[in-house]
Amino acid sequence: MNLEVNSACLLSEIEALALISEAEPPVVTRILFTETDMRARAWFIERCRAAGLTVRQDAVGNTFARWQGSDPAAPVVSTGSHLDAIPNAGKYDGVVGVLGGLEAIRALQRARFHPKHSIELLMFTSEEPTRFGIGCLGSRLLSGSLSAEAARKLVDKDNQPLDVVRRNAGISGELEEVEVPRGYYKAFIELHIEQGPILERERVPLGIVTKIAAPASARVSVEGAGGHAGAVLMPERRDALCAASELILAVENAAQASGSADTVATVGMCDVFPGAINSIPSQVRISLDIRDTDLATRDRVMSAVKHAAKQISERRNILIGMELLNADAPGESAPEIIEALSASCRKHGQKFLPMVSRAYHDTLFMARIVPVAILFIPCRNGYSHRPDEYASIEDIARGTLVLAETLAALSSK
Amino acid sequence: MNLEVNSACLLSEIEALALISEAEPPVVTRILFTETDMRARAWFIERCRAAGLTVRQDAVGNTFARWQGSDPAAPVVSTGSHLDAIPNAGKYDGVVGVLGGLEAIRALQRARFHPKHSIELLMFTSEEPTRFGIGCLGSRLLSGSLSAEAARKLVDKDNQPLDVVRRNAGISGELEEVEVPRGYYKAFIELHIEQGPILERERVPLGIVTKIAAPASARVSVEGAGGHAGAVLMPERRDALCAASELILAVENAAQASGSADTVATVGMCDVFPGAINSIPSQVRISLDIRDTDLATRDRVMSAVKHAAKQISERRNILIGMELLNADAPGESAPEIIEALSASCRKHGQKFLPMVSRAYHDTLFMARIVPVAILFIPCRNGYSHRPDEYASIEDIARGTLVLAETLAALSSK
Repeated sequence: MNLEVNSACLLSEIEALALISEAEPPVVTRILFTETDMRARAWFIERCRAAGLTVRQDAVGNTFARWQGSDPAAPVVSTGSHLDAIPNAGKYDGVVGVLGGLEAIRALQRARFHPKHSIELLMFTSEEPTRFGIGCLGSRLLSGSLSAEAARKLVDKDNQPLDVVRRNAGISGELEEVEVPRGYYKAFIELHIEQGPILERERVPLGIVTKIAAPASARVSVEGAGGHAGAVLMPERRDALCAASELILAVENAAQASGSADTVATVGMCDVFPGAINSIPSQVRISLDIRDTDLATRDRVMSAVKHAAKQISERRNILIGMELLNADAPGESAPEIIEALSASCRKHGQKFLPMVSRAYHDTLFMARIVPVAILFIPCRNGYSHRPDEYASIEDIARGTLVLAETLAALSSK
Repeated sequence: MNLEVNSACLLSEIEALALISEAEPPVVTRILFTETDMRARAWFIERCRAAGLTVRQDAVGNTFARWQGSDPAAPVVSTGSHLDAIPNAGKYDGVVGVLGGLEAIRALQRARFHPKHSIELLMFTSEEPTRFGIGCLGSRLLSGSLSAEAARKLVDKDNQPLDVVRRNAGISGELEEVEVPRGYYKAFIELHIEQGPILERERVPLGIVTKIAAPASARVSVEGAGGHAGAVLMPERRDALCAASELILAVENAAQASGSADTVATVGMCDVFPGAINSIPSQVRISLDIRDTDLATRDRVMSAVKHAAKQISERRNILIGMELLNADAPGESAPEIIEALSASCRKHGQKFLPMVSRAYHDTLFMARIVPVAILFIPCRNGYSHRPDEYASIEDIARGTLVLAETLAALSSK
């Protein structure tokens, strides 16, 4: 089999997709079910159909592009990632796995490979938590990790329910029908940029992920008392932003003091009400994102944050409420998929590193219904979720080649 | 002269104006040159014309309703305040001085008083700093405290210049023409709610302000490095929100440690970029508002904040930039206006307290071109800049009566 990746085509597709953005280049912003997201989906579906794939979409907008195998009833070999992008992001996060997966399939077609097991390319809905506060919405529903009932309770910041938003975007069907039966898939592999500095530093072009860090996230509301910034004296104040600031520093401190170098904790959002220069903040809402590859450590950090919140609340006479959005268990790759990827690397003479993924991915949830692994490629400085995120086309093509080889191996027997 | 305030009419006007708001009752929000602000202005002008006053508007939207005196060339006796309201405010701040001033004039008309000096009711543009970050925009320009050139450099948060915003709102003319010559006014009195708890606590119905606290405000930008909330380890982070949180607490601490009970310092706004739950904040913008009746104390607090910013900046390798928006000197009332107000109180058998104003008002800037004083009435719990701000109609009417009496005294000779 003469497997060749068309780098020029893949690169031009990555560049074309980056222009479907809510922000000016090089910034990429694609928020779930916006007009921009819908244009990106339509563009992607068109590319899949041009490759002769059969496309279907489920009730939450997960998109499946299928290359029928000679045994249509055999469990499906799958790959994929996501196309949504947080505000002020770059071109590669998620995109490399979706468009690389498409190019891997085309490379197999050009090599006149004929799969026995059908191969499916998946584009998951809302891997990023931007709109509904919960990441991996599509893969959670697909894997049965989130119930349709729970999904229906999700609202965005304008209080619009998911069910309304998806239907307004033209996505129909019932959320109950999104879950895929166990056994339907034989394997799932996600090609992704590392989003960390290790491969670049070690000068190794590929990483095979064995473990995925466990995320926990929450929305925190801090309620004090407003008033005129000139008239209310300092001892009489119950300033919600001062309390929130203490909590933000407590979150940072809890992560730093966890005893594990892997622990990270982030407050990425802070909304102040009423938000005027001469008005004491009466209410602040912040987000909380805590991760570790070890569940116990992460839970310990979350407890430390809760303890700090209680102390701040009492000392400042401020109400602090915490709504847990998710607290997932860490994920593990399947030995047989790790081995299939390793064999493909060896076959093409490529060095690779076994690694952990500190970012989470749809693979974390796919792991609950199918044997999985993630294939990492380097990204410059480890940067991600910012406009200067960058992966070279050589690295992307290399990952795509190893992915194609592995899909071939898994789907041929 | 049989001077009588029509409380029912005044109350119904206050209630009617409160309904011209961007928010649902009881919340009042009226931001400069929005459609809501323009409706409030039109309503107010109509009320002035109904009272037989001649209305003109200057190039920044300050509105002057004139009752011509028997000596039209004599210096003008003036009163007034503002109608704009910060987000999530109440019904009385500013409004009491404008509508109370109108009712004072009508009471004098009903009493068949004929002024020698013309009497002008002023409605100032943007006493609140909400839109352009600087308070008392109208009275600053009118008093020559802010140049037309400097005003033209002001932009709102959408980067729209004042000149564009005002013209879009239908306000024409040149900003150079706003300044009023010294000697044009004989006196200026502002009727206002106290926005503090003293009158209520002391059970005294009126306060005569002798000094106005000096405000200093700034916009602070905090720039760190963004990145993926899962992938960037804690020691590698330069989180702008953590740095901003330290600064917010340093601001609070500097005010508490100033040695003066009058010092207040507030961070009322905090905007986080990019603002996603799983993204490390790369940039944060906060506002800073520091006040004291003593200029040296306030400047000492500002220095302490700058020192803290420098330390945080160095320790965290974060860029902190501070743009001073204003740093005004405290204001003083004129002995002759204080005496005129005191005489009116005595004439009507009303007790009053001499006080300082911790909030600043248009009077602070009017003081630079005309002898001034402020007349305070109590407000419940000292609350202001919040929806439950409240002043009783009895207190408002009492203030209006004393104001009318004083306008009569000052305009008759």
